[in-house]
Amino acid sequence: MLAHQLLERKRDGGRIGPDEWNAFLRDFVSGAVPDYQMAALLMAVYLRGMDREEIAWLTEAMLGSGATLDLSHLDVARVDKHSSGGVGDKVSLVLAPLVASLGVAVPMMSGRGLGHTGGTLDKLEAIPGMRTDLSLAQARAQIERIGCALFGQTDEIAPADRRMYALRDATGTAASLPLLAASIMSKKLAEGLTGLVLDIKRGSGSFFPETERALQLAHIMTALGEDHGCEVVALITAMDRPLGNACGNALEAEEAIHALRGEGPSDLMEVTYALGAEMLVLGDVAGSPSEARRLMEVAISAGSAAHRFQQIIESQGGDPAVVDDPARLPQARACELYEAPRRGFIAAVEPRAIGEGVLALGGGRRRPVDVVDPTVGFVIRVKPGDWVERGEPLATIFARDDDGVRAGRAALETAIRIGDEAEHPIMLVSHRITFTGATRC
Amino acid sequence: MLAHQLLERKRDGGRIGPDEWNAFLRDFVSGAVPDYQMAALLMAVYLRGMDREEIAWLTEAMLGSGATLDLSHLDVARVDKHSSGGVGDKVSLVLAPLVASLGVAVPMMSGRGLGHTGGTLDKLEAIPGMRTDLSLAQARAQIERIGCALFGQTDEIAPADRRMYALRDATGTAASLPLLAASIMSKKLAEGLTGLVLDIKRGSGSFFPETERALQLAHIMTALGEDHGCEVVALITAMDRPLGNACGNALEAEEAIHALRGEGPSDLMEVTYALGAEMLVLGDVAGSPSEARRLMEVAISAGSAAHRFQQIIESQGGDPAVVDDPARLPQARACELYEAPRRGFIAAVEPRAIGEGVLALGGGRRRPVDVVDPTVGFVIRVKPGDWVERGEPLATIFARDDDGVRAGRAALETAIRIGDEAEHPIMLVSHRITFTGATRC
Repeated sequence: MLAHQLLERKRDGGRIGPDEWNAFLRDFVSGAVPDYQMAALLMAVYLRGMDREEIAWLTEAMLGSGATLDLSHLDVARVDKHSSGGVGDKVSLVLAPLVASLGVAVPMMSGRGLGHTGGTLDKLEAIPGMRTDLSLAQARAQIERIGCALFGQTDEIAPADRRMYALRDATGTAASLPLLAASIMSKKLAEGLTGLVLDIKRGSGSFFPETERALQLAHIMTALGEDHGCEVVALITAMDRPLGNACGNALEAEEAIHALRGEGPSDLMEVTYALGAEMLVLGDVAGSPSEARRLMEVAISAGSAAHRFQQIIESQGGDPAVVDDPARLPQARACELYEAPRRGFIAAVEPRAIGEGVLALGGGRRRPVDVVDPTVGFVIRVKPGDWVERGEPLATIFARDDDGVRAGRAALETAIRIGDEAEHPIMLVSHRITFTGATRC
Repeated sequence: MLAHQLLERKRDGGRIGPDEWNAFLRDFVSGAVPDYQMAALLMAVYLRGMDREEIAWLTEAMLGSGATLDLSHLDVARVDKHSSGGVGDKVSLVLAPLVASLGVAVPMMSGRGLGHTGGTLDKLEAIPGMRTDLSLAQARAQIERIGCALFGQTDEIAPADRRMYALRDATGTAASLPLLAASIMSKKLAEGLTGLVLDIKRGSGSFFPETERALQLAHIMTALGEDHGCEVVALITAMDRPLGNACGNALEAEEAIHALRGEGPSDLMEVTYALGAEMLVLGDVAGSPSEARRLMEVAISAGSAAHRFQQIIESQGGDPAVVDDPARLPQARACELYEAPRRGFIAAVEPRAIGEGVLALGGGRRRPVDVVDPTVGFVIRVKPGDWVERGEPLATIFARDDDGVRAGRAALETAIRIGDEAEHPIMLVSHRITFTGATRC
């Protein structure tokens, strides 16, 4: 009866109040509100929208539908990073141990890859033995001990969000900014954070190709954080090309290890340092971004960041020796170079086509139940704007077999375009958004 | 995959093509498209609308999802009437035998009451033994024999509509004109009609309190009929007060029998004759409404209409003797007069409050699974505009017990308002709409 009234009100453009959202989500989680009523409501929200106050009520109700990580007894700041998802984005694997090694607690709850985008959990699980299905109690104990846990959303956290997420995906309502913002923030706020840094991707390979929508999402989420006493800083970063060189789960884990040892590709390091600086300033470890950057460079050159990653891997059942010897990561059976079919400037490395290529190789998921092969993927040596000669190696394809190699080659032919003139790619880190406003970087 | 694409397209205001509707409904009926995807689509249709061509495609797809009644071998016209639902509306029980007795086949598929509105099947089933769950083959055989069958929607007819109807009700999308028009017309076209008369109610007790929306629905449905070679005439009639005097299933069956014997209340007869005239002209039995009216008056005074009702009742397992002796209908255990609390003009007899009163007495359904008590209800002797003295009997309450009488009294106190000045009720039959246009009556 309540569900019906709320549906009609949202259908007509009205607002659902805080107590009503609480009751509706409680009934949804218990099964009293069936999926089809939630599905109709999601579509009504997609088309009618929500104002900022109502998004906060929904976020609060989603947060309240489950348990939270209570870390308020720690005497350090708790800061996490969230990315809106991209191709080649292994930043979390570098950033979490790096920032934790500098004294900020990082309770990082991540997701799995779906479609053309990868997921942090899949990259972590490429490490032999590594488990990410920690309970909240296990995550809490690990954070107390070594300042960081890298884990997946448990059944305990925001169960309403987990079920709404599946329905949004099936009903064409996933791209609703209010629903997306409430979904992300309810999970992040459940981590008991004092600060949060958002990496919102823009460009052809991102969820929000248009900068305007990326900015809108950033504004909504910084405001939601403000409402909950969690300071949020968002950076808009480029996803018109893959980040770093490696695309594929074990390949990305290896690149992340190299990055922690000071040998990361420059674009990956630039994004990592930009996000890390915000985390360290939010966490009161550094007084300025430049000071934060110096601290991070020292943590990497002194080996303390890499060592922290070893501790995390060991604590989560993985083989810590991969950090010293990345060859212990699972290796693809077939690999082959991909060479430039002509000379010219690299006009584009289309991240969506690369992501689809990883999928075609068996390294991703079309449906949530698919099993991924960690070994497959690409290492791409070129970036848009680079000059290449005909026959010059542009990438390496890592595959299960010759069929895979052929699929990988086809993907690269689509993804890597060579032209006659150099084009300027979009800025790697272009905007910084806080509750008080946005600035261009 | 298809479902997802169609959802996104409708969400963005696009059209779904005829083959796509067919495939989508086929998958919905088979279970391949889950309820939640249909629910989201219904909400998108509610908010984005459909043009006339797309409504026709949807209607065709719903019609094609099941079987149809093939009556093309009959050498008489097949004409039915559909009402958008009201309180005290027992027209079908009078009209179907009346028109059938004059040589037009009437394959009348009806519904049950829900909420404050009554349903023809419930009124028919108040007659002892009467069955309405005829198969299509049974209905067809009965129409061949006696020109009329009064039955419910079977599983065979438009199964997509039946499942969509339940979802529309649960998702706040029932009032979407495109969905409503497609739902009604897919069922009516499945009856194999040559003509259809619509009784679209307006006023406070109707589904469409605003005349504008009643007219829109009429326009859409006459156009849909035209597309399918079924001539449609719509009349807009008043539902700002109950139709006739009796409200409650057995009481309405009794009033219908009186009407067939020439003793019906004048407003009931006026609406019945207006709709019947359209049916007889569509059915080529009369050349004009006035000739049709004379034919109907003769059929009633000569007893042939009442006799046809007896034949229908007998054929469907009911006790035909009720037509000569309505006292054989089930009788309420408790009854009491309701008297005017003051003198004055009857300002309103609110149909919605009367319908709610019948529900409170146990004579209606709040949910489709509820069981109705046929005996309870009201007989209301006054109409808006009548002058009444204090203490004058206004209505009789029929109830199961004293608690019921009290509930009925409370409903009447709300429903019947007495004022100092006579107000003009809206016209009983106000508009006539065909494919070519609308005229005021």
